[in-house]
Amino acid sequence: MVHESTLLLVLDLTGTFVFALNGALTAIEAARVDVVGVVTLGVITAIGGGTIRDLLIGAVPPAAFQDWRYLAVAMGGGLVAFGSGQRLGKVTGIITILDAAGLSMFAVTGATKALSFGLGAMPAVILGAVTAVGGGTIRDVLVRRVPSVLHSEGTLYAIPALVAAGIAVAASSAHVYGLPAALGAVAACFGIRMLAVRYHVTAPVPRRGQPAGPADSQSAGTAP
Amino acid sequence: MVHESTLLLVLDLTGTFVFALNGALTAIEAARVDVVGVVTLGVITAIGGGTIRDLLIGAVPPAAFQDWRYLAVAMGGGLVAFGSGQRLGKVTGIITILDAAGLSMFAVTGATKALSFGLGAMPAVILGAVTAVGGGTIRDVLVRRVPSVLHSEGTLYAIPALVAAGIAVAASSAHVYGLPAALGAVAACFGIRMLAVRYHVTAPVPRRGQPAGPADSQSAGTAP
Amino acid sequence: MVHESTLLLVLDLTGTFVFALNGALTAIEAARVDVVGVVTLGVITAIGGGTIRDLLIGAVPPAAFQDWRYLAVAMGGGLVAFGSGQRLGKVTGIITILDAAGLSMFAVTGATKALSFGLGAMPAVILGAVTAVGGGTIRDVLVRRVPSVLHSEGTLYAIPALVAAGIAVAASSAHVYGLPAALGAVAACFGIRMLAVRYHVTAPVPRRGQPAGPADSQSAGTAP
Repeated sequence: MVHESTLLLVLDLTGTFVFALNGALTAIEAARVDVVGVVTLGVITAIGGGTIRDLLIGAVPPAAFQDWRYLAVAMGGGLVAFGSGQRLGKVTGIITILDAAGLSMFAVTGATKALSFGLGAMPAVILGAVTAVGGGTIRDVLVRRVPSVLHSEGTLYAIPALVAAGIAVAASSAHVYGLPAALGAVAACFGIRMLAVRYHVTAPVPRRGQPAGPADSQSAGTAP
Repeated sequence: MVHESTLLLVLDLTGTFVFALNGALTAIEAARVDVVGVVTLGVITAIGGGTIRDLLIGAVPPAAFQDWRYLAVAMGGGLVAFGSGQRLGKVTGIITILDAAGLSMFAVTGATKALSFGLGAMPAVILGAVTAVGGGTIRDVLVRRVPSVLHSEGTLYAIPALVAAGIAVAASSAHVYGLPAALGAVAACFGIRMLAVRYHVTAPVPRRGQPAGPADSQSAGTAP
Repeated sequence: MVHESTLLLVLDLTGTFVFALNGALTAIEAARVDVVGVVTLGVITAIGGGTIRDLLIGAVPPAAFQDWRYLAVAMGGGLVAFGSGQRLGKVTGIITILDAAGLSMFAVTGATKALSFGLGAMPAVILGAVTAVGGGTIRDVLVRRVPSVLHSEGTLYAIPALVAAGIAVAASSAHVYGLPAALGAVAACFGIRMLAVRYHVTAPVPRRGQPAGPADSQSAGTAP
C-alpha cells in the first residue's frame, strides 16, 4: 500500500513535470528563445507559483530550493520540450489535459500549505490560485504576452483553481479535510476546466465603448 | 473622539479602495481583460506595493494576507470598476485626485512601516516610494505597458512619493514624528502631484541622438 | 596588505556600479524614460538579482537595503548614465567588458552566499546565476524587451554565470574554497563570456516549423 504522503509527492512532481513541459512549449511558440530560455521558462512555469506562495507565507527557502527533485524534474520537462521542438506542441489535447491536472493539483496543495502556515481562509484560497497560475503568469510576462489568466481569449482558468482551493479550505474549516476531500477538490477543478475548454466557456468581460489596444494584435495572432 | 490608529486604518483602506478602482479602470483601458483580469489587476495595483515592501522588510505574511479587510476592499474596488465598464474611466478628474491621495498615504505609511522594522533612512524612503508606486508598476507590466512611473509621458509621480517618504523619515529622525508630521507629508505629496498634473510638470529626460523604439507606439497611442 | 573581505566588498561595489551604469544605458536605448526611470532601472539592474536571491534564501532585509553603500553606488551609476545620455552607450567595448566582470563577480558571490545560508549545491548554482542575470531580466521586462538571457539573439550569458557558480560550489564541496578558487571561478566566467562575444557563440535553439511571433520585430530592430 502506497503511503499518502508518497502519493502526494508523486502527484506534486507529476504536476511540476507537466507544467514545465507545457511552459517550455508555450515559450517556444511565443518567442525566439534558445535552450537556456526554454529550460528557464519551463522551470519558472513549474515552480514560479509555489515560490511566490512560499515567499508570501514565509516558507523560505521555498520548496523548490530545498528539495532538489523539484528543480530536477522541472529541468527535465524543459529539456524534453526543447528536444521535441514544436512537434510536441501540436499534441494539444494531451497538453491541455495534463495542464488541467497540474492546475488542479497545485491549487489544492497551494491552499493546503497556506492553511498549514496559519493563513486565513480568504488568503489561503487566493494563494491556492496563485500557486496554480503564478508560474504561467511570470512566463507570459517574460515572453511579452498579456498573461492568459487575465483576458477573455482564454477559457476559464483561474476560476476552477479558485473553486478547488475553496473546496480544500472549506473542508479544512469543517474538519473533514483529508485525501478524499483533496481529491474531490482536484476533480472539481479538473472537471470545470475541461468543460470550459470543451464548450469554450469564458468569463464576462467589461462593457467598453471601443476596442482596447495592446492585447488586440496578440488576440488576432492566437485566434483560430 | 476617533482613535489615531482607527483614523490611519480608515485612510489606509480608503487608499486601497481607490488604488484598486483606478488600477482596474486602467487595466480595462489597456488590455482585453475579463472579470478575473479586472479584479486581479485592481487587487494587484492596490496591494502590490505594500506586499513588495513587506517581503523586503521581512514582514510576512504581508499585511494584505493577514487582515482580510485589505483583500476585501481591493476586490470591491475592482468589482466596482468592472461594473462601471469604461464609463467611470471618463471621470478623469476625480480618479486623478483619489489616486494622488492614495499615492500620498501609501508613501507615508510605507516609509513608516519600513522604519518600524529597523531599516535605515535611505531604504525607508525608497520603500515608501515602492509602496506607493509598486502595485501600479506590476499592473503595467502585466498589461504590457512601460510602467508610467518610468517615462517622460507621465507627469511627476515617483518624486512626490519620495518627498512624502523623505519628510516622514526626517521627522522620525528628529523625533517629531506623529500624526501632524504624517499628515504634512501626505499633504506635500498630494500638493506636488496635483500641481504636476495641473501644469504638466515632467522630470528631465536623457539627451538622445535618435528616438527610442518600444515605447514610441504606446506614447503615440496615449498622447492627447 | 588589503584584507580579503575589504577586497570582496570593493569587487562587489564595483560590480554594482557597472551593472547600474550598463542597465541605465540599456534603458535609455530601449524606452522613452525620464531621469526617475533611468536611475530606477539602473538600480534595479544592479541590485535586482541579489535581492531576489536574498528573498529566496531568507536573508531579509536584502543586502542592498541593509548597507546604504549598495544603493548609493547603484544610484551613482544610474546618474552617470543619465548625464552621459546616449554617448556612453556608444563605448560598447568597455561596457561589454565591465558587464562581463560584473556578471562573473555576482555569479560567484551569489552562489557563495546561498551556500552560506545552507542551500544545497543545485539551488546554490542556480541562485548564483539568478544573482548575475536577475537584475537585467527585471529591467528588460520593465522596458518591454524579451529578456536577452532567454533568447538566441544574445551570445552566451547565463551559461558562463552557471559555470562560475558551479566552480564555486564544487570548490566549496571539496573544502578548497577560498579567494583563489573564487577568483578562478570569476576568471572562467569572464573568459567564456568574452570569447562568446568575440566569436558570437550562441546557445542551441529549438527546431521549429515556422518563425515565432512576438520577439521577431525586436530581433529585426536589434540585428546589425
